[in-house]
Amino acid sequence: MMVFEYENDIVIVDVGFQFPEEDMLGVDYVIPDISYLEGKEHKIRAILITHGHLDHIGAIPYLLPKLKFPPIYGSKLSMGLVKKRLDEFNLTKQAQMHVVDPDKTLRFGSFSVDWFRVNHSIPDSLGILLKSPAGNIVHTGDFKFDLTPVYQEPTDFAKIGSFANQNISALFSDSTNALKAGHTLSEKQVGENLEKVIAEAPGRIIIAAFSSLIGRLQFLINAASRHGRKVYVSGRSMSDNISIAQELSFIKTPPGIVNSIKQMPNRIKDADTLILTTGAQGEAVSALARMGLGDHPQIRIKPGDTIILSSSPIPGNEKAVFSVINNLVRLGARVIFNQVMDVHTSGHAQREDLKLMINLVKPRSLVPVHGEIYMRHAHAEIGRAMGLSQENAIVIENGDVLEIHNGQARATKEKVSANYIMIDGKGIGDVGAQIIMDRQIMSQNGVLTILLTVDGKTKKLVKDPEIITRGFIYMDESQELVKETISRARKGYEAALERFKGWKRGDVKAYVRTALDRFTHRKIGRNPLILPVIIEV
Amino acid sequence: MMVFEYENDIVIVDVGFQFPEEDMLGVDYVIPDISYLEGKEHKIRAILITHGHLDHIGAIPYLLPKLKFPPIYGSKLSMGLVKKRLDEFNLTKQAQMHVVDPDKTLRFGSFSVDWFRVNHSIPDSLGILLKSPAGNIVHTGDFKFDLTPVYQEPTDFAKIGSFANQNISALFSDSTNALKAGHTLSEKQVGENLEKVIAEAPGRIIIAAFSSLIGRLQFLINAASRHGRKVYVSGRSMSDNISIAQELSFIKTPPGIVNSIKQMPNRIKDADTLILTTGAQGEAVSALARMGLGDHPQIRIKPGDTIILSSSPIPGNEKAVFSVINNLVRLGARVIFNQVMDVHTSGHAQREDLKLMINLVKPRSLVPVHGEIYMRHAHAEIGRAMGLSQENAIVIENGDVLEIHNGQARATKEKVSANYIMIDGKGIGDVGAQIIMDRQIMSQNGVLTILLTVDGKTKKLVKDPEIITRGFIYMDESQELVKETISRARKGYEAALERFKGWKRGDVKAYVRTALDRFTHRKIGRNPLILPVIIEV
Repeated sequence: MMVFEYENDIVIVDVGFQFPEEDMLGVDYVIPDISYLEGKEHKIRAILITHGHLDHIGAIPYLLPKLKFPPIYGSKLSMGLVKKRLDEFNLTKQAQMHVVDPDKTLRFGSFSVDWFRVNHSIPDSLGILLKSPAGNIVHTGDFKFDLTPVYQEPTDFAKIGSFANQNISALFSDSTNALKAGHTLSEKQVGENLEKVIAEAPGRIIIAAFSSLIGRLQFLINAASRHGRKVYVSGRSMSDNISIAQELSFIKTPPGIVNSIKQMPNRIKDADTLILTTGAQGEAVSALARMGLGDHPQIRIKPGDTIILSSSPIPGNEKAVFSVINNLVRLGARVIFNQVMDVHTSGHAQREDLKLMINLVKPRSLVPVHGEIYMRHAHAEIGRAMGLSQENAIVIENGDVLEIHNGQARATKEKVSANYIMIDGKGIGDVGAQIIMDRQIMSQNGVLTILLTVDGKTKKLVKDPEIITRGFIYMDESQELVKETISRARKGYEAALERFKGWKRGDVKAYVRTALDRFTHRKIGRNPLILPVIIEV
Repeated sequence: MMVFEYENDIVIVDVGFQFPEEDMLGVDYVIPDISYLEGKEHKIRAILITHGHLDHIGAIPYLLPKLKFPPIYGSKLSMGLVKKRLDEFNLTKQAQMHVVDPDKTLRFGSFSVDWFRVNHSIPDSLGILLKSPAGNIVHTGDFKFDLTPVYQEPTDFAKIGSFANQNISALFSDSTNALKAGHTLSEKQVGENLEKVIAEAPGRIIIAAFSSLIGRLQFLINAASRHGRKVYVSGRSMSDNISIAQELSFIKTPPGIVNSIKQMPNRIKDADTLILTTGAQGEAVSALARMGLGDHPQIRIKPGDTIILSSSPIPGNEKAVFSVINNLVRLGARVIFNQVMDVHTSGHAQREDLKLMINLVKPRSLVPVHGEIYMRHAHAEIGRAMGLSQENAIVIENGDVLEIHNGQARATKEKVSANYIMIDGKGIGDVGAQIIMDRQIMSQNGVLTILLTVDGKTKKLVKDPEIITRGFIYMDESQELVKETISRARKGYEAALERFKGWKRGDVKAYVRTALDRFTHRKIGRNPLILPVIIEV
């Protein structure tokens, strides 16, 4: 989420969420921290959406009410997907949603907004030219250049080229592939490879792809039809996205070609089917993962099946993806993925494309956005190699404030709050460092609860401590250890009784906890979360 | 670990461990299941070690006593590292360790063993020719071909070529890079790239590498010396391995060049230092990770530092590695890793090298080993493309039994026990599915303990239930929820009292647990581990 502010006007670009980092145990999503906007809601003129991926629209339902429902603008498909998100949260009625005509200029107070078509791994992606009295900026959104895209128009090079004459103070440009050499492979080449596999496959074909990669889905549906195969769709996000894309005419299907997997006839010939499924990222509950585990309600994988993962693993998903591939291979399928053949291409511009973008826009400064900070630094280096000065290739981070003054962009020392707001189940922002740390300890060594039943007056133990463990040891198989733990707990409590004359509950518990922590560590090399519970009777 | 058996003779190749899968929470290592060998210890003639990496020697100290200390054979460096492992477990005295001369044949009952030199990412790696009356096999161990290795001899191509005339029934060959096209990049090329970076770096140089990549360490030490830099070593495994390699003459250092980081003078010039460190895999407690966090006792990263990760992430470590890179970049360092420049090469043979190995050995059948099953299938496909029949390119899994009869290898239907034996702290094999599952639940949603204090006779609650949570919610900030949970627990218990006339403790607890599980799920979308505790007073 990016905020542009000039005097009394605020314009927001994208309101996405991110998936949790590996150490954020149990967290579902992370959404932007909008504390800076508190009290400024009346200044927000618009939310501009570059494209319909969740990392750009996913947090809208969580934050729109807090932002007091400013109007949202985006392309037809982006707004279709925003509407679906808002529907899920029953917020559609209050929301103001506008599909933009990319050729028309919009005005929001002191800002004017123009749009330009870019290619990306979802159709109908747009970049933004935002003009203000302080300076003009270009924001690419996520983009790549594809001279031969599939079922999409190429990036609007001519329009982008016209920005060179419009005094662009800063180009905010997608850095995801700033370390990848050359140009991004065209979707057309991927299509040709996929077509070849489809033409030659002897049996069933199962293809896992991103459900938002609408152009590729259209291509696969048409290819299936060309080769006499019917398409069966498995996985909720795949069905949902195909439905939305059909409604909005982004996918056009000959009648009868696309069906739900539930409608697949029992006796259909393998060579007549192509199954489109979710799970290309190895997601544990996805249709493809279930096929690998022999746990899918309709599909049993068998020799003769050709499975294509038309994707590449998002960093962090590699193990999960290869575990699914292992399971599928083990069942006898032929599995084709990017290491075997180019059956996927990235949605992000590679180094030579990033250079072309800079050459087309000719900005005074470059602000790398999207991608990890090491990618943004690499992108800044590209800008410097093309003649930008050190201070005009500006790497900033979440919460940093950039100032544009008389057309000159400068990073400031100002910081706004940009904490991770974590969503776990229905709770928003109620999961913090202590909860995550406790989960980490329990994930490694479990929990050990000690019940200390004591006399309400004398505070002396009235019986032996009892222990309850989960995720620590099998108590039945470790009776010796259990006995010793109980004895240590007793001794620890008695020592604490001696030591803390005032019998402060917190001190006593801490003392017992430390004694047991040392003991379990020495004895068995494990440090469970230790919970002493004092029960006075 | 691989077991070869002929009548009364058993020979074992390698006794490694593996690092835990992502879902094995809290597990340190996984070691081989040796139940098949129970009762057959007297038949074990030898353990043959191909090379000194932990996935080939790491389980020796855990399993050697159970195997009744059979003699261990391997190269000088491999045995040096085996000895170090055994020292840590105080097992050196009982162990029989033998450094082999690769040019001499060993005999173990019906088996004879010859060795051949291969290249890998640790020096002194050997492959094995094992002959038996039933057939002869070649086991490559982990290998690559490097025509211009650094401070090592190239693979012994001539000796391997001589196997073609020795009726090899089965070639057991390393499959790790079976999906990587071409030949593995030579270590010499990596050296040239590293030398260039070292020559041009303006300030300090910090290089993270695998501590067992002795040849590269030697190269870096010499390069430092050539460019007037002293070497300071940070990280325990790096110091340990350099010491062992020095002792065994695998690293030769001019006096005074290599020092501990603790000896680094305060006022040394940045351009005079090269720091060798651990942490190339993003390990959280490593020296490099601590530098990234500003938490290293001697080193503060600053602009002007050049940091090289001379490695590539092992699958599953990508996120951790890039997180360390992000931290280092953020502190102003220039970070060079494989995406930027070839500063690392794999230790495993790529497709064309695998084909050459098959051509040199000319085996009757190919048994892909090492690497994931999808890699082994890809390797089998290479074998078939080179003319092996479907059934002579044999993919087997842990626990599968291969039979060689009259020189013909065949997979059988026989299976031996090959469970994951998990090591957690000092416990071996005492962590099982239930413990791991409990840890998984707690890692996601924490634990919710409910104390039900009841009358010993009537079993009625004598006071309100109390709840204790960790990793679930902040109780102070969720008082409403806490109250409601307590009330649900009371109602659940009372309903259970009604329902289970005989008051079976297990049934009552299960009932309360289910009631609370439903409640927390509906209310807050979380399913903690729920532990009802009944205290009778």
